[in-house]
Amino acid sequence: MAASNKFDAALDAFARIVGPDNVTRAAEARYEYADAMAPRDPASYAPRGAVAPASVEEVQAIVRLAGEHGVPLWPISRGKNFGYGGSAPRIPDIVTLDLIRMNRILEVDVEHGYALLEPGVGFDDLFEYLTANKIPLWMSAPAHTWGSVVGNALERGVGYTPYGEHASKICGLEVVTGTGELLRTGMGALAGSKTWQGFPYGFGPAWDTAFMQSNFGIVTKMGLWLMPEPENTVSLSMALEKAEELPAAIDALRPLKLDGTVQANPSFGNVIRTLATRATRAEYYQGAGPMPADVLEKARIKAGVGHWNFSVRLFGDRKINAINADKVKAAFHGKVSAEFQQSEWNRGEPLRNSGSPMPSLGALGVVDWLGGKGGHLTFSPVSPFSGAEAWKQYTLIRGMFEDAGFDYYGGFTAGQRYLNHITMILFDRSQPDMLERANKLFPRLISTAAKNGWGEYRTHVLWYDEVAASYDYNHGAMRRWNEAVKDAVDPKGVIAPGKMGIWPKAYRKDRA
Amino acid sequence: MAASNKFDAALDAFARIVGPDNVTRAAEARYEYADAMAPRDPASYAPRGAVAPASVEEVQAIVRLAGEHGVPLWPISRGKNFGYGGSAPRIPDIVTLDLIRMNRILEVDVEHGYALLEPGVGFDDLFEYLTANKIPLWMSAPAHTWGSVVGNALERGVGYTPYGEHASKICGLEVVTGTGELLRTGMGALAGSKTWQGFPYGFGPAWDTAFMQSNFGIVTKMGLWLMPEPENTVSLSMALEKAEELPAAIDALRPLKLDGTVQANPSFGNVIRTLATRATRAEYYQGAGPMPADVLEKARIKAGVGHWNFSVRLFGDRKINAINADKVKAAFHGKVSAEFQQSEWNRGEPLRNSGSPMPSLGALGVVDWLGGKGGHLTFSPVSPFSGAEAWKQYTLIRGMFEDAGFDYYGGFTAGQRYLNHITMILFDRSQPDMLERANKLFPRLISTAAKNGWGEYRTHVLWYDEVAASYDYNHGAMRRWNEAVKDAVDPKGVIAPGKMGIWPKAYRKDRA
Repeated sequence: MAASNKFDAALDAFARIVGPDNVTRAAEARYEYADAMAPRDPASYAPRGAVAPASVEEVQAIVRLAGEHGVPLWPISRGKNFGYGGSAPRIPDIVTLDLIRMNRILEVDVEHGYALLEPGVGFDDLFEYLTANKIPLWMSAPAHTWGSVVGNALERGVGYTPYGEHASKICGLEVVTGTGELLRTGMGALAGSKTWQGFPYGFGPAWDTAFMQSNFGIVTKMGLWLMPEPENTVSLSMALEKAEELPAAIDALRPLKLDGTVQANPSFGNVIRTLATRATRAEYYQGAGPMPADVLEKARIKAGVGHWNFSVRLFGDRKINAINADKVKAAFHGKVSAEFQQSEWNRGEPLRNSGSPMPSLGALGVVDWLGGKGGHLTFSPVSPFSGAEAWKQYTLIRGMFEDAGFDYYGGFTAGQRYLNHITMILFDRSQPDMLERANKLFPRLISTAAKNGWGEYRTHVLWYDEVAASYDYNHGAMRRWNEAVKDAVDPKGVIAPGKMGIWPKAYRKDRA
Repeated sequence: MAASNKFDAALDAFARIVGPDNVTRAAEARYEYADAMAPRDPASYAPRGAVAPASVEEVQAIVRLAGEHGVPLWPISRGKNFGYGGSAPRIPDIVTLDLIRMNRILEVDVEHGYALLEPGVGFDDLFEYLTANKIPLWMSAPAHTWGSVVGNALERGVGYTPYGEHASKICGLEVVTGTGELLRTGMGALAGSKTWQGFPYGFGPAWDTAFMQSNFGIVTKMGLWLMPEPENTVSLSMALEKAEELPAAIDALRPLKLDGTVQANPSFGNVIRTLATRATRAEYYQGAGPMPADVLEKARIKAGVGHWNFSVRLFGDRKINAINADKVKAAFHGKVSAEFQQSEWNRGEPLRNSGSPMPSLGALGVVDWLGGKGGHLTFSPVSPFSGAEAWKQYTLIRGMFEDAGFDYYGGFTAGQRYLNHITMILFDRSQPDMLERANKLFPRLISTAAKNGWGEYRTHVLWYDEVAASYDYNHGAMRRWNEAVKDAVDPKGVIAPGKMGIWPKAYRKDRA
């Protein structure tokens, strides 16, 4: 059967399961399910169609039909994986499995502090549900909140509360496998279990983390731990005027993260990350290439921000936060030239305001920075939690950005024992020269980071293979292991071939 | 080749790798590597021999030779998995792979708070290393400390500090696979990685938790997070005189665990668990069958202990511990009839004393309780963190113990969102009638728990299959998934066939 007919036939079959209104044909899918921030022609890796089921049973039926038709599926939750490919698949000869209609909040257990969610639930949906029902549990959200709670956590997205390492708060998954079977992980593997969202391991090998950034299955339900609403939060904000103060700040923070004084994830954002939420680049500079240092310094002073800007946030009892705030201030005092600005939130105050720990739903500033058709590409190496190592990584990567003609936009988000260095190459998609430079820069960043012992924690769909190849211990033993497992559990390669560089046998020829 | 010759030939081949002194022949292995607490004839599931390699390369060579000889291997770290089979394998036609000679502490990073360990390192070894080198990091240990740090964490053992859920502190593994390949998980999959023990996920599916309670590979190195030494610890001990006070105590603790006020894992131990560390049963009672309630109550009063005894321990800054101690006391006050006894430890004081947070290396009281040849069998269902559910589980299981003629010995250890109910059937191995009753009781406990939605978190090697079968969601989808993976990564079934009920194809006929 010709390829185009194969996809048409599969979409016809899917329509019989979900109804024709929930199937998107190629002509529309090419736009609706493409990478909205694409660094090259988005049509070149847009899917052949899409199908949006409303239930687990429909997902199972679609997976089985996909296997019969030889058509692979690219599952997305809400498709807002911006900077990493959005809703776009790794290969174009595929049908997007859009889970946005499966958007039920199935359970919120106040006493035990968890929710059971379907993948279509957005951060805004969950926030509205918790506030409308006066549930004293807090979610953690990333900077932008129209994405999926499930999708974000599975891709290991990060937020800003003590529950901000979202992947670590997942407890229990329901998964449709590549053969259409239904699986529940952890204690959910026992029918009628009372601790599916409570005990994170179950009996024997635990699988939750292997279904993250993964193509081993399609997650249809996810348990997520939620944080009891604290009595008080304290926000200690600092603006470091000099770029060179970063290492001292990182080293001051490390022991506070290690001993649990600071449980949230402070993020050291650079000057351009801060400026981009307030203005466009043209207000400061009209030239090509990266903003010269003196221009940037003038812009920084004019905006009244630091070269690095960050907040250390404390969540808990008021008396304890006060003690810890003093400890944080003492730890930084004398190590950096600035002092903290302190603000507070107390239980009963509105959750969405400038001093609040909850998402403020700000606009996606990065899109507008350059003007034109804004797009971005995110490069995210992990750094040891060390001022010296972070400085080395920052200067090297910033230099490479600037050599390629881009402003360095980035920040270091602090985990307990690592730094997540999130950088973005910002471009105007209407300028082919910019796109070409971005596409050339990206693989150089990957190889330079790998040579220095820094791996990426996540990457854009177009560079899965390059990043996967950088994980080269014992000639790529981990990739071979992943592919052995993939072939065993999804022999037809139905689910997301190529995701994270994991290719099922039938598609292995497509590896870059 | 006859079976016995096959094992002899394999042991000869192993001897050429590790030297004859590090190979144990069947006649000795039958005793040295048997279950020291066996509830039936230990020879019936003792191995055919053992081999003790000293390096990763030797492990790889042994695995490859084992595959060639058709001889499976049963890896143990130090073999102290007491109550769950000790060093004994699931099937007797196997060679024990004893990793005790691989006992190097490869790295302790003080600034980042982690260690890199080989499986032969004991808790005592690590404790001595940290104290001798004045390293301000604390390990967490279970009640008895001659076991392996790696083995205990991989089996999801539990300790009593904020790092007491040992499995959750594992970061990065080195694994020899069933084909003799070498794998490093997480960031270790990138050669020369600087964040192998810092960032717990890596790129793509994360595997650490799937190598726990697992036969997917042999762990040869493990990263483990260590806790910065606190300034102060506060121990709040309580003795509840009435069994019926347990639910109120559990419900008082739940919000304190959920909001992080209490970060360690308090354990509510019953009266016999407490008495067994101080005396033998014969001092109180000489009759057969479970101790009558009035006798037990007299013994309890004479010993001056509670029906439930537990300690809530706080670790951190002195001022904050004082605030949290008040909060804990207030939460229990009025809910239970007893008050807390408070004791403290401050930095600089000895680490091993009665008020200390470190292991006291007490004797294994359970062995001596009944006199004779003491043995025990551990039954460990997980309970929701709820007084009512724990009470239901306790009364049901206690009743079944007593119906079978055993004292109920047990306790509930509090995780953040679950209770780990650890019970022990104590028996005298020289009394066949007792063993028979224990062997009959055990499967009844498993099925009764499963019917109530309670799964075991760990079990004895003799009942792997029964517990695995109780994880029956979608007709055992999780078991089929695990076995599909097992066959893919270990096609000859070399590593630990039958562990946790996961059988490779060649041995599937051995399933109970």
